[in-house]
Amino acid sequence: MGSMAKTGESLMAWNRKHLLDIESLTAEEITTVLDTALAFKAVGERAIKKVPALRGKTVVNLFVEPSTRTRTSFELAEQRLSADIINFTAEASSLKKGETLKDTARNLEAMNVDVIVIRHSASGAPHFLSRVLNAHVVNAGDGAHEHPTQALLDVFTIREKKGSIAGLNVTILGDILYSRVARSDIWALTKLGAKVTLCGPATLVPKTFEQMGCRVTHNMEEAIRDADVINLLRIQHERQRKTMFPSINEYSRLFGLDRQRLGQTKPDALIMHPGPINRGVEIDSDIADGERSVVLQQVTNGLAVRMAVLFLVNGGKDPQEISAN
Amino acid sequence: MGSMAKTGESLMAWNRKHLLDIESLTAEEITTVLDTALAFKAVGERAIKKVPALRGKTVVNLFVEPSTRTRTSFELAEQRLSADIINFTAEASSLKKGETLKDTARNLEAMNVDVIVIRHSASGAPHFLSRVLNAHVVNAGDGAHEHPTQALLDVFTIREKKGSIAGLNVTILGDILYSRVARSDIWALTKLGAKVTLCGPATLVPKTFEQMGCRVTHNMEEAIRDADVINLLRIQHERQRKTMFPSINEYSRLFGLDRQRLGQTKPDALIMHPGPINRGVEIDSDIADGERSVVLQQVTNGLAVRMAVLFLVNGGKDPQEISAN
Amino acid sequence: MGSMAKTGESLMAWNRKHLLDIESLTAEEITTVLDTALAFKAVGERAIKKVPALRGKTVVNLFVEPSTRTRTSFELAEQRLSADIINFTAEASSLKKGETLKDTARNLEAMNVDVIVIRHSASGAPHFLSRVLNAHVVNAGDGAHEHPTQALLDVFTIREKKGSIAGLNVTILGDILYSRVARSDIWALTKLGAKVTLCGPATLVPKTFEQMGCRVTHNMEEAIRDADVINLLRIQHERQRKTMFPSINEYSRLFGLDRQRLGQTKPDALIMHPGPINRGVEIDSDIADGERSVVLQQVTNGLAVRMAVLFLVNGGKDPQEISAN
Repeated sequence: MGSMAKTGESLMAWNRKHLLDIESLTAEEITTVLDTALAFKAVGERAIKKVPALRGKTVVNLFVEPSTRTRTSFELAEQRLSADIINFTAEASSLKKGETLKDTARNLEAMNVDVIVIRHSASGAPHFLSRVLNAHVVNAGDGAHEHPTQALLDVFTIREKKGSIAGLNVTILGDILYSRVARSDIWALTKLGAKVTLCGPATLVPKTFEQMGCRVTHNMEEAIRDADVINLLRIQHERQRKTMFPSINEYSRLFGLDRQRLGQTKPDALIMHPGPINRGVEIDSDIADGERSVVLQQVTNGLAVRMAVLFLVNGGKDPQEISAN
Repeated sequence: MGSMAKTGESLMAWNRKHLLDIESLTAEEITTVLDTALAFKAVGERAIKKVPALRGKTVVNLFVEPSTRTRTSFELAEQRLSADIINFTAEASSLKKGETLKDTARNLEAMNVDVIVIRHSASGAPHFLSRVLNAHVVNAGDGAHEHPTQALLDVFTIREKKGSIAGLNVTILGDILYSRVARSDIWALTKLGAKVTLCGPATLVPKTFEQMGCRVTHNMEEAIRDADVINLLRIQHERQRKTMFPSINEYSRLFGLDRQRLGQTKPDALIMHPGPINRGVEIDSDIADGERSVVLQQVTNGLAVRMAVLFLVNGGKDPQEISAN
Repeated sequence: MGSMAKTGESLMAWNRKHLLDIESLTAEEITTVLDTALAFKAVGERAIKKVPALRGKTVVNLFVEPSTRTRTSFELAEQRLSADIINFTAEASSLKKGETLKDTARNLEAMNVDVIVIRHSASGAPHFLSRVLNAHVVNAGDGAHEHPTQALLDVFTIREKKGSIAGLNVTILGDILYSRVARSDIWALTKLGAKVTLCGPATLVPKTFEQMGCRVTHNMEEAIRDADVINLLRIQHERQRKTMFPSINEYSRLFGLDRQRLGQTKPDALIMHPGPINRGVEIDSDIADGERSVVLQQVTNGLAVRMAVLFLVNGGKDPQEISAN
């Protein structure tokens, strides 16, 4: 928690209007989000979990790809910042009538909307919106590209538990090739000085990821042996490419974290998962619920990180200014 | 309305963290809810229908079985208590991806959620949640087990109209066997001293209900003759078990309340229905809208009762403390 | 903007409990809405876009026909007036179980709801509700009958750009016969003294509309030549009556607004469209985004007009009383 001493200076590091990805952020900007989130985490532990930071501002949750967990986390973050909220999902929307994303977004903006939080199946959709709108844009996941708030909550959780990120061995397991979580995590971790190892079936973890500064291995034992953090990605078996993927049973046998493999890890290695968990596939049920697992802390921290992001893109500067509503 | 005099003492009778069922409540606890609801009913009649009792608290409406009426009533109750609200329905949720109810609920709790209002098709789902969560749990209907807030609004309405419950003859008509409303009503009414008669087709109103302290009859005339209150349950004809149930026409002929049968009841017998009404099936349309019917008062009182329940499980003590927001 | 001088007197012109249609309004009442909306438009440009006018009031958005844009505009208007909001859509509702619209509405009213904003596929549904309820009713579009807030935002936008309505030539193009927007626009424009021309395929723009005081033509060039305002309605090609309608290509060729036709219009003619636009069908994409187009201003003004309507039907009198929350 030594980072708190640096809060004053690091907060000067945010001047962005949007949060579109992790790739374009500096280590200082990432640290600014984490420090700001620390102040907001305390808000979630109060009896009255509300601050007036975004009162009278309107936030639209424009979810063109379904998601309950991420949308709920954003919606609670917005409520606790006292924003007005519109939930705009694709199923209910005029997008069905052939309206373009651009028209939808510009119509929302014409209603004096301040922030658009967008999830979209097309990579680059948030960047596109940021070019055609005056509103602030926050990426809540775009195609297989990035999921920046997930990466920020992941590094927040690691820093909280380990004190800092630099020098840690972090292993990410699973379907790396199509995972926006993996991509954002890799950017955030390497910018903050961690050594990242990727592991999974060869078809889903190609050697090309070494160009992002990662080690790639297809051997589970080798991947987890020296890890300080083990991040197990969700297997999307409902929509997995059949030809590239082994059976669920085979995946679980080769890359699932069970009690025997847990015994081969460092005794203080953190077990992470972005959720929702397929119990018995990526991870055994008792490990997911065990003392090494930080899965629920990730959820708690996600809320604090999203409050921080919404606060910062809206021009918030000093979380010390946050007072009870 | 003599119960008002006892308000001070009866309010000491609530120390529960959850509202899971009526079966485990004492008569004093039920009376505490009713007295508290009386104070909240006045809030609904103000120009500004809002009190700050739950400001900064987060309530999740976790409806895994669809319901608009009950969810709307809870949502309005939460708004009038100034809570932050997340509506989480099964259709939109990660439950589709095979996530367990436990994981969903623990994830919500990790976001510092204070109350989970749950409706679920599985009996016992709220009890299960109350064992794995720290959050307060309110049962909004679980399978064919209980629907406690419906029973509380029913006895509130009867007490409001009749002064007290003890000694009244209350007849419940319809599909008792599969009705969570019937089960909760029977518990609440018998605990408060009413004499309960159950009536309907023999397949749906078995004699075993006599063990709950009720009289069972399959003769409509006998059931309604001495009743002070007649509660007509909704016929769920869209999902009724075909083999156990007569045709809609036959049901209506044998057990529907028409003008002729109404003439055989006591002149001041209340007509109740939990809604939505199948006009012309359980009850003739003009009786449902007539002066003996308290169907819409039940809806009004439901809001007050749900405000009271949310207030009490959150540790609220004295409704006199409730002031305008 | 000379209308501002008249604000004081014109505000005396509203004593209605509902907004059901434009047909029954006087010119003075329409002007009152426009003047009130002018005050609310300024609220949307503040840092804190909220006033306490409807605090503690409950508004239900009862959308039995899907609509994201209009519902979002109403919901934002309600949030900025600080109302409590229930969104009640047909898909999620008890209407599926065979409940009547009357029962649904009376149940909502029993929860002490103050305003019901209704969209319904049946013409006259809002009028029906206004007869059976005590709550205020606002028509958000009923069948092919009227869409009064769309007409009010259209005349607000024209007055804002042209100073006044009287004497202007306004041309409405498209499927007039089945358009509730056209019907409401015609009433509002003619009451305020505009000369209205209707144009489109003969099957969709019958001569009978001359009885409403309009000129009818099936010749695009003639329709737009002297127009001060050109309002292009959306072609509902997903549900258009096939036998009455030319192909999309033929419609576009005969009645679409392209650069060549734009050259034949008055240089200061406004281009309007209620949205969502079929780019390349009713209008070329660059004209929709061009400097003559007021499409996005219509969206902005829609919010102000809806705030004004909700304020007035609730008994609001003087927009000068509106202060920051």
